[in-house]
Formats: sequence, C-alpha cells, structure tokens
Amino acid sequence: MEGFEYRGGELFADQVSVDSIADAVGTPTYIYSAAALRASYRRVVEAFSPLGVQVHYAVKASSNLHLLRLLRGLGAGMDVVSGGELERAWIAGTPMAEIAFAGVGKTDEELRAALDGRYSLLGEDARRLAGRDAVGRGTVGLFNVESESELERLAVLAAELGTKAKVCIRVNPDVDPQTHEYITTGKEENKFGIEVHRVRGLFERFSRRRELDLVGLHVHIGSSVRQVEPYVAATRVLVSLVDELEAAGYPISLLDLGGGWAVDYRDGESLPLQAFGTALAPLLLDRVERGLKILIEPGRSIAANAGLLVTRVQHVKEGRKRRFVICDAGMQTLVRPALYQAFHFIWPTRAKDAQVPTAWTTTPHLPDLRQSNVVGPICESSDFLAKGRPLPEVERGDLLGVFSAGAYGMSMTSNYNDHPRPAEVLVDGSQVTLIGERQPLASLFECERQPRTVDLSALEKAEVSC
Amino acid sequence: MEGFEYRGGELFADQVSVDSIADAVGTPTYIYSAAALRASYRRVVEAFSPLGVQVHYAVKASSNLHLLRLLRGLGAGMDVVSGGELERAWIAGTPMAEIAFAGVGKTDEELRAALDGRYSLLGEDARRLAGRDAVGRGTVGLFNVESESELERLAVLAAELGTKAKVCIRVNPDVDPQTHEYITTGKEENKFGIEVHRVRGLFERFSRRRELDLVGLHVHIGSSVRQVEPYVAATRVLVSLVDELEAAGYPISLLDLGGGWAVDYRDGESLPLQAFGTALAPLLLDRVERGLKILIEPGRSIAANAGLLVTRVQHVKEGRKRRFVICDAGMQTLVRPALYQAFHFIWPTRAKDAQVPTAWTTTPHLPDLRQSNVVGPICESSDFLAKGRPLPEVERGDLLGVFSAGAYGMSMTSNYNDHPRPAEVLVDGSQVTLIGERQPLASLFECERQPRTVDLSALEKAEVSC
Repeated sequence: MEGFEYRGGELFADQVSVDSIADAVGTPTYIYSAAALRASYRRVVEAFSPLGVQVHYAVKASSNLHLLRLLRGLGAGMDVVSGGELERAWIAGTPMAEIAFAGVGKTDEELRAALDGRYSLLGEDARRLAGRDAVGRGTVGLFNVESESELERLAVLAAELGTKAKVCIRVNPDVDPQTHEYITTGKEENKFGIEVHRVRGLFERFSRRRELDLVGLHVHIGSSVRQVEPYVAATRVLVSLVDELEAAGYPISLLDLGGGWAVDYRDGESLPLQAFGTALAPLLLDRVERGLKILIEPGRSIAANAGLLVTRVQHVKEGRKRRFVICDAGMQTLVRPALYQAFHFIWPTRAKDAQVPTAWTTTPHLPDLRQSNVVGPICESSDFLAKGRPLPEVERGDLLGVFSAGAYGMSMTSNYNDHPRPAEVLVDGSQVTLIGERQPLASLFECERQPRTVDLSALEKAEVSC
Repeated sequence: MEGFEYRGGELFADQVSVDSIADAVGTPTYIYSAAALRASYRRVVEAFSPLGVQVHYAVKASSNLHLLRLLRGLGAGMDVVSGGELERAWIAGTPMAEIAFAGVGKTDEELRAALDGRYSLLGEDARRLAGRDAVGRGTVGLFNVESESELERLAVLAAELGTKAKVCIRVNPDVDPQTHEYITTGKEENKFGIEVHRVRGLFERFSRRRELDLVGLHVHIGSSVRQVEPYVAATRVLVSLVDELEAAGYPISLLDLGGGWAVDYRDGESLPLQAFGTALAPLLLDRVERGLKILIEPGRSIAANAGLLVTRVQHVKEGRKRRFVICDAGMQTLVRPALYQAFHFIWPTRAKDAQVPTAWTTTPHLPDLRQSNVVGPICESSDFLAKGRPLPEVERGDLLGVFSAGAYGMSMTSNYNDHPRPAEVLVDGSQVTLIGERQPLASLFECERQPRTVDLSALEKAEVSC
C-alpha cells in the first residue's frame, strides 16, 4: 500500500518505522503518509482531467487542520457539511470562495456563518485559531441546498445580511449505487436532495430572488460505490435536467458530481478512479467545452489509504474456538467495523520474512497463521476491529497496523467508555510531525466542572459553552 | 414515563417545561430527571433486596459527574471499565473501596492508577478536578479480571507497588441471552470472561500470590436481556463453579452478577426487574445467609428512562413516499438507532389534546399522524433517529422529545461532521441545573493547534497531551 510498506520485516510509513512512532507518541495513533496523500490527490485530478474538474476535498473524511493545509497546498477547495467543518476549512487557510457548504440540516447559525464572517461560529477565538479575523471573510463559494425549506432560509438570511448566495440544488436521482444500505444517499427513500420532478419548480420560485444565484445542480449517490453504472445513470439524470432547465430559461453553469467512488480496502476490490472519469467524460464533454464547470468532492478516495491506525496489543486470550487479540484501539478509535461491518486489513508491524504480507486480503496465504478476533477495550461485543482473521502469532506488547484507516477513522472517534482520543501523526519522507496531540484525560471533564442553575425566567438565551 | 409527562399538551421534565429548558440552553440537549433516577435506583435495590445486594452503577451508561454524585448520594458504588471512568467515579466522590474495575483491555497505566493513587491518570489535574489529591486514595475495592494475561499483569504490578488486589474472575458461562448480536457478552465466541473449564486452573495458579486476593466470580451475559432464563442458566453455572472451587479449598465470598436487564423503550416490552430478582433469589439465598455477598451492576435500568434528548426541527422535507423531519440531533448525538437499530419513542414536546401520546409504542393509535423519518444533520444514510414512524404534523422550529435516552446516549456521542457535543441538564423538582455545558466549537481544534516535530532519536516517551 502506497506510503506504508514492509522493509526487512518492519512496517514503514514513508521513511519512518511505525514502531518508532508508536514508541515515541504512544498508542493508539493515526499515522498519515504525506506522499500517499499527494499521490491520491493527483490520481483523482488525473482521473477526471478530461472534464477539467475543480476538486473540493470532503472534509468529513478526515478533518485534521494540517491534512487540510497539505491538500490546500495542492490546490484543493473544501467541501464542508457543518458550521464546524466550515470553520475548520477556513482556519486551515481556505478562502471562503473555495468552500462549498452541503448537508441536510443546516441551521440558521451555520448559514449565517457561511454568509458573513461577522457571524463566525468561532467568535473571539477566530484570531487565536486562524491567525486572522473572520470579519470580512465573505460568503462561501457555493451552497449545496438539500430542501426547499433550506433554500427559503438561505434566501431570508442572505437578504437580511445583504449578501448573495451561489446555489446548486442537490438532486436525488433515485439510483441505487448497490452499496451498504447505510451509505446509500441517492435513492428516493434517503433524506438527501430534492426529487427530480420538483427541481424545476424550485428554479421557477427562487431564481428571481436577488439574494440567490441558482447556478447549478449537485448530486451525490453514496459511499464506497464500486460500479460505474450508477454514476452514469445519475449523470444522465442531471444532464437531462440541465437541458430541461436551460430550455426553460435557467442557465446552468456548474455541476457538482459529488464523490463516493470506492477505494481498495482489499487489494483490487475497486475499480481504478480512471474508470469513473472515463465513463462520465462523454456525457459532459461538449457542455464543458461550452463553459460548464464540473466540481467533484473526493474524501475517502484521497484519505483512506493514506492513513494507518497503529494499536498495541494489551492482552492475548485463548478461547476454545478462537484467539482474542485485545488492543488499545477499539470502536471508540475506529467505528467502521462495528457500524458498517467494514473490512480493514490488520497485520503486526513486525513480521518474519515468510509472514510479510504480499496482498491486503481477507485470507492471506502465508504459513503459521491462526484464526483471531482483533478486539478493543470497550465493554460490548460490537467492539471489534476484525473477526475470524488469519494472523501470525502475536504477543502482549506487539503493535498492529490497521490499514486504510485514513478516512472516517479519526473523524468518527468518540470518548465511549471515557477513553481519550488518539494522537495523529503526519509523516513526510523522514520528517515526523505530531499534528494532533493525544486528548488529555482531564479535557473529558471540562464541560462538567461548574454546574450552574439555569434561570428560566431570564428571556435571553443563556451562555452555555464551557 | 416517570419524570417526563405531558401536562396540558406540553411535555414536562419533573416540574419544568421541556420547551423552556430548550429555549434557555439550546438544542440538542440531554435532560435528566432526578426523580426518575432516584425511583429507578430504588426499584433496582428492591428487586434484588432478598439477596441484600450491593449496587455498583455502571458508569459507562451515562457518566456525567453530577449524575454519579446523585447516585452516590443514594448509596451506589461504581462499576468502571477504563481508567477514564475510574477517575470519573473518584472525582464524583466515590471511595476507591466502592469502585469495581472491569473491562477486557486494562492497560498497565490503568491498572497502576487503580492500585495506587500516585499513578492517577489525572496527575496534577487531580486536585483541580476532584478538590483533593489522588495520592493515598488506595486501591479499588474489586478488579473483575477478564483473562489470565490480565491477572498476571495485575499480580506483577500489585507486587511492584506493594499493594494487594481483590479479584473476581469473570466467567464466560456460554449462555445465549437472545438479544442483539452486538450486546451479547456471555457466549463463548465473545471476548468477555474466561471459559468455565479454565477457572479452577486460574485459582490453582494464582490464589497463593500474596498480592492477589481471589474472592469471587463475576458474570455479565449481555445488554437489554428480556428473558429471565439466561440469568438463571448463568447463575447456575456460577453456583456450580462456586461448589467446585470451595470443594477444592478456594473459599468464595463474592459473586458479581453483572447487569443487562432490559428496560422499556416501548411500554411493557420488558419484564419488571422484580422478575429477575425473584428468579435468582432461590439459587443464592442459602449461600447469602451463610455470608456470600452479591454485587450487581445496573446501568441502563437506572439511567435509560431517566433521560430525554430534546432536539429542534431544522427543516421538514416532503418526499413522494415519506416525510423527512430533519433535526439538529443525529447519530453524533445518539448513535443507538444507527448502531443497533434501536427504538426510541419520539414525539413533539407540544401536542394537541387528541395527539398527546398515551403509550410509548411504534404505532400510536392517534388521529392525523403521518409516516415520517426523523433524521439528523450528518451526511450519511445511517444518520436517523427513527424511520417510518407515525408522527403529528411538525414544523421547522418545533421541538421533539427523544425518550429513554438517558443511557448510552451522551456517553456514546461523537464529534462526527465536526458537531460539538450537546449540553446536559438535570431537573430536580422545579430546579434546573446545567450539569454539562455545550461543547464550545473551539475545543474541537485544541489538540491540533501546535503541530510539532517528533524527535525519534529521543529515547524517552514524548509528552503528547495538548
């Protein structure tokens, strides 16, 4: 796997041994490879190069400020889905014009912050965190709007603030991406987007509002999608809607095609990204040549395989039927196995010559492996990283690498069972940077330090941040 | 539902309108009823009163310091499953002797902190958080040990520190509690406990270690268990093992029967707790009369129905097939629906007379309801609170109560999509106390503020807390 490979039986992240990082900063720790991030970013750009796409990195996949800065340095804009992510993208140095704001549940506070820096959610912390004031930062470059209710609120708030919002309407194309039910987002029964037959009505009702600029359409059909066909189907829906809208006098200058292309958690399980770009290009090329701009929102395809979770074995327990390898990482650190039954390749960071893995696969054909459940410290059975997996002998104190953990790993961590969050490290060549310190235990109690009586007779909203 | 009821069409928590709390502290917010907590605590004690049980509240269910203090005031000891929970129980005023430390993945650092206050995980923060020093606080009253590996480490560390550890061996009775696969903990394929046939060997090997005091056995078969039979089966296994151990010369003075009894998420779906106490009493009474002590670890049965999550509707979206009610609470606030397909009764906090719910049920028989999906702001389809649920009309700005959210609600929250954590409020009669402030957005960036180069040539472990 790019960025992470065994040399002389020892796992390296770029030029640095994973063991040395774990020894220095402790475990569990997320390790990102700068080389892998750069390479995957370039692959995305190349795969869609016929369409001259603009890339907005989906911050939700992995949102560490320093990863955002690295991607920003490569030219990425940012796709955000909350006020928190908006502030994150901005702290990381993204100009508001290169931020797109998506998400079904945008609140008034979040919309205001995206419209006008005076309403930044960071308040006085803005300068401390970003090194500059939020006031005057302007309006985000794009709102991807999910409902008529949201469009109405956006218009009202933009008018109040005297700004103008650039908008794509998110279309629900009702196509089945044939992936896990939980990561399907473009079917009619999902909460996302607006049904095709309602879109024209929205343009009719809202296109004359001075505070709105309805520039285009947005679609996002799901996550970990392995087939090209659903994208082709969704794009056809979009293109035909563009025709209909333009014929009705609503010029469309932007299509946001979303993201969601599957990546390899096992070797070769996913199509190369090129396949998606190649399939979509013919549907859009002539329009692109006439000036249509295409935006994409890769998250997983950039970050997943650029990250590794390293965890230390705390106890090994022999059962009659299987062996349990109990680690300090669990569902509080990486929830994907529990939540989606997701596969992550897991292997000791040190392996004998004959046991160095040659492929990321469920069943490696190597000698002397034993069926193992790799589990975490959380007190419930959903807390596992892998079940029934052939693994070499491991002992208490050994380190395991959990591969392909760069996306939806750190961003989904919790403090369940009162475990602090892991550290994050970025490796660039031989340089190792601690980009996220391990959460100090005391911070888990901060919001509970000073209970105070709430006076319900006071009419104004109380200050409730600790 | 005790503690939460409609009066004049408006939902109250004890003596206080839920709307007034939401208006004062914002949403989403967890609201706990002190009256309901006290009542459920007493019900647990009464249900098992024939056995004269000692109650250890399972901190993982809902771990706010002020809830722990309230339960502590009623006489509860604390069951903890991590170093973080251990410090939490201690900060809340629990003497170490009344804390039991369970969990499969105890690390050396955690074991040391539980053995000797000099190794408290809070370090210099101890006095600031607890108002007293950790040094001299002593050793926890009980270690529930899950593996031979852990028992060995406990012995080594206790010897190093010159202390003695009181131990129950957690037995895996291999009974099927017939609940969700994810919350089954007493089957052989689970990671929990030690197989019955191995227990005697452990007593043989470890009972003479001066630093260990093997006082008893522990069992915990799962969560949300609706039948009495699995408890009876597990207790029989335990009792027969006690006979075997005592015959072999190992006196057993303590049985920890765990918890896991189901509660009502829908009216009447669970047995009254009394049924469990009544079924187990005959198996244990004669031994209790001869001096055996019984411990139980209720979590959900105390906290679940003493908590309500209140969330505000941000947008309502009509689909051809269903209506989506989009709230500010989602899987980042309450992950149980996504993770376990769990049911929570949800209803507007204000209801017309004819629509005041009379029972917590999947299909209320009330007029003018519409099939609705109640969803959150997170960008994935697993983010729902309820699917296909008959609900009254609701509008943007309305408040919804998510009932039975007092256990595994707040304790499983995350910052997914960079949403800050909700506030927590305790209502006691007409007194409203903010016991957990809403997480300030800026705190989400604290651990990323100062990236620094890690010098791998330095041999000592770096300081990695922000």
